[in-house]
Amino acid sequence: MSDTITVKLIDNPGGIADCPGFKTAGIACDIRENGKQQLDLALVTAESPCAAAGVFTLNDVCAAPVHVCKEILSHSGVKVAGFVANSGNANAATAEQGMVDAKEMSTNSQLETGIGSPFLVCSTGRIGRVLPMGKIKAGIAAAAQRLNESEEQSLNAADAILTSDTRRKVATAQFVFNGKTITVAGMAKGAGMIEPNMATMLAFLTTDLEVESSTLKDTLVRACNKTFNRISIDGDMSTNDTVLLLANGKSGLVPNDHPELLHAFREAVFMVCDTLAEKIVGDGEKVTKLVELVVEGCKTDKDAEKIARSVGNSLLVKTSWYGSDPNWGRLADAAGYARVGLKEECFDIHYDEVPALIKGKPQDSKLSEWKTIVSKKRFRITLNLNQGDGNFRLLTSDLSEAYVDFNKSE
Amino acid sequence: MSDTITVKLIDNPGGIADCPGFKTAGIACDIRENGKQQLDLALVTAESPCAAAGVFTLNDVCAAPVHVCKEILSHSGVKVAGFVANSGNANAATAEQGMVDAKEMSTNSQLETGIGSPFLVCSTGRIGRVLPMGKIKAGIAAAAQRLNESEEQSLNAADAILTSDTRRKVATAQFVFNGKTITVAGMAKGAGMIEPNMATMLAFLTTDLEVESSTLKDTLVRACNKTFNRISIDGDMSTNDTVLLLANGKSGLVPNDHPELLHAFREAVFMVCDTLAEKIVGDGEKVTKLVELVVEGCKTDKDAEKIARSVGNSLLVKTSWYGSDPNWGRLADAAGYARVGLKEECFDIHYDEVPALIKGKPQDSKLSEWKTIVSKKRFRITLNLNQGDGNFRLLTSDLSEAYVDFNKSE
Repeated sequence: MSDTITVKLIDNPGGIADCPGFKTAGIACDIRENGKQQLDLALVTAESPCAAAGVFTLNDVCAAPVHVCKEILSHSGVKVAGFVANSGNANAATAEQGMVDAKEMSTNSQLETGIGSPFLVCSTGRIGRVLPMGKIKAGIAAAAQRLNESEEQSLNAADAILTSDTRRKVATAQFVFNGKTITVAGMAKGAGMIEPNMATMLAFLTTDLEVESSTLKDTLVRACNKTFNRISIDGDMSTNDTVLLLANGKSGLVPNDHPELLHAFREAVFMVCDTLAEKIVGDGEKVTKLVELVVEGCKTDKDAEKIARSVGNSLLVKTSWYGSDPNWGRLADAAGYARVGLKEECFDIHYDEVPALIKGKPQDSKLSEWKTIVSKKRFRITLNLNQGDGNFRLLTSDLSEAYVDFNKSE
Repeated sequence: MSDTITVKLIDNPGGIADCPGFKTAGIACDIRENGKQQLDLALVTAESPCAAAGVFTLNDVCAAPVHVCKEILSHSGVKVAGFVANSGNANAATAEQGMVDAKEMSTNSQLETGIGSPFLVCSTGRIGRVLPMGKIKAGIAAAAQRLNESEEQSLNAADAILTSDTRRKVATAQFVFNGKTITVAGMAKGAGMIEPNMATMLAFLTTDLEVESSTLKDTLVRACNKTFNRISIDGDMSTNDTVLLLANGKSGLVPNDHPELLHAFREAVFMVCDTLAEKIVGDGEKVTKLVELVVEGCKTDKDAEKIARSVGNSLLVKTSWYGSDPNWGRLADAAGYARVGLKEECFDIHYDEVPALIKGKPQDSKLSEWKTIVSKKRFRITLNLNQGDGNFRLLTSDLSEAYVDFNKSE
């Protein structure tokens, strides 16, 4: 047997139910209270209780469902039944009532499905408004009746978590080990502003591998650090950001017994997260361009991250991308105010492969080539400080007038 | 004699030459190379060499004139002749040639005025382009011929440093000590994007008090920390930001001999800086609203500053102000991701005097009052963490679609 297992993303992914042993439902229960038949509640269960891991927002202001998930996952070795997620209302800044409601969503999912293990819970949407619990309870009851393994319900679930997203976001990776196919399936909602209150990102991954929770957590954290934590649309961090990974063990395979199996699993989780992260940035609110910012040659990776975030979140940089203006001066300015000790006389900037600044000197003869690159829908900018080995990659976007218009009021 | 001296801002300030013993000139020498007769070079000299102090950008990427000013002021007890400043070209990211040119601006000012002491030098405008030194040298020669104490030349000088500013920015404070009037006069250019490359702020203050350079520096740093360092339009920090304070000693009064005189001087410098800082924010690019953010009750002042900058620079917060939307949820979110340990259940938010959130609970009955306040051209938002005595005040602005349009390309 080969040491390396090939992991592949599948074409036409079908969402969570691509992974054997998971049932899904996505239904409409009018959480937005506007009378429209919009899918807004997703319920996911496994045939048998799952090991689970979560990565959550670092915001001091956390929504109630984040508190509930953290509490459930704080019990060592806990197994969960699945999760329930709604769009249309974030259950954030809702004080004590929010906690009561988030817990009730969890326990209600248990009651309606008849599964004894706890349900994780996520909400996204408008903040500062109490959940319409009557509608949500009716929704959970209806969803529990429709739970199945069909692709239709799986895609309904993926649609039910969307807010201002313009496209469904699903990805599935698979690999074969000892003749058995292992799957990691995922769905996400975007970091565009919602409803239009704030940028929440939710992502849900499932696998049929049997993975203990500490390995699951470690795998998820590694993947998030290289994917979801390296995307930026407007630099705002939501109160609700959550990524969950559930393992139902249906394949009967345990990666800890096989280093190459663990390696393939980590790769599959990374690939699903990376694909979902890219879909999120590409579908950011009123985004017209996707920019891959590569920062190299820093003293530390942390310095490189500071520069990447300083540049990637600069309004002046983002508006210049929107205008297809190869304004490397703004890049240099934003890199400079990250204040990591950048030396101008060592500093290189490239648009794709074309130099803009070499050792601090502008390469003006390349102006027309820069313009061509910055006019593309997707391009790469590399900043090299030539002062060490630290590096960081950030996927980011431009800033349009439409973004301002879209977010200027509720 | 009273212990407290009353310091007053004068009506209709006339710029630098409000201060006795300073001569000014503002002329047009086509630094933008567009053939327009636009004032673009200011020259200021004193009757006798001046003690001087400067506060400069903290950006790793500094423009050449910033390096030259720092070098001149690094000599202990140095006296300067005055300063020369141009708009239309920032002399930034211009490598070795930029240093040569900035020094030549300084020495050329000495030659043309016949004053032996060095001239400080500032530039603002487009970056990455070498100064048109022929035009600048001709401009310095012409300005040297016109140097006088008239209000006309003083206002010409104030106009010559402007870039995308829509209004001249001058302020003058005076007080009387032992029957003598002491003056602190100032002019500034705004932190709006320029040409439209980046946000440079320049400010120049003069006084006829005799102040040694260490006291001058200390006074200027204190004033800047409470004024220019507490304003924000788009969170970008320029390569050229400079504040200079020159003291020619013409009054013959030395504040070190009189604590109350020093106190009044510090107050006058603060008042001029504060007035100029407010004019800068009010004239920020495409700004429609001025917002005073007061953060209180933090464990430290530094924590309060983190929250103020996190909120004041949030795109979601700024766009909501633009839309007159009292979206306190976005305020809470941005305060939370400053990550200073904010406790939701202790957190208060007020629009002017009207509560929006008290101990984490929304005060929804006040919605119409919030809307009225956020619809004003200027309002205050107070965030109180109720966890200590640390506080910070930031003057900031909204973000409009016109800003994006204005900055999307050169």
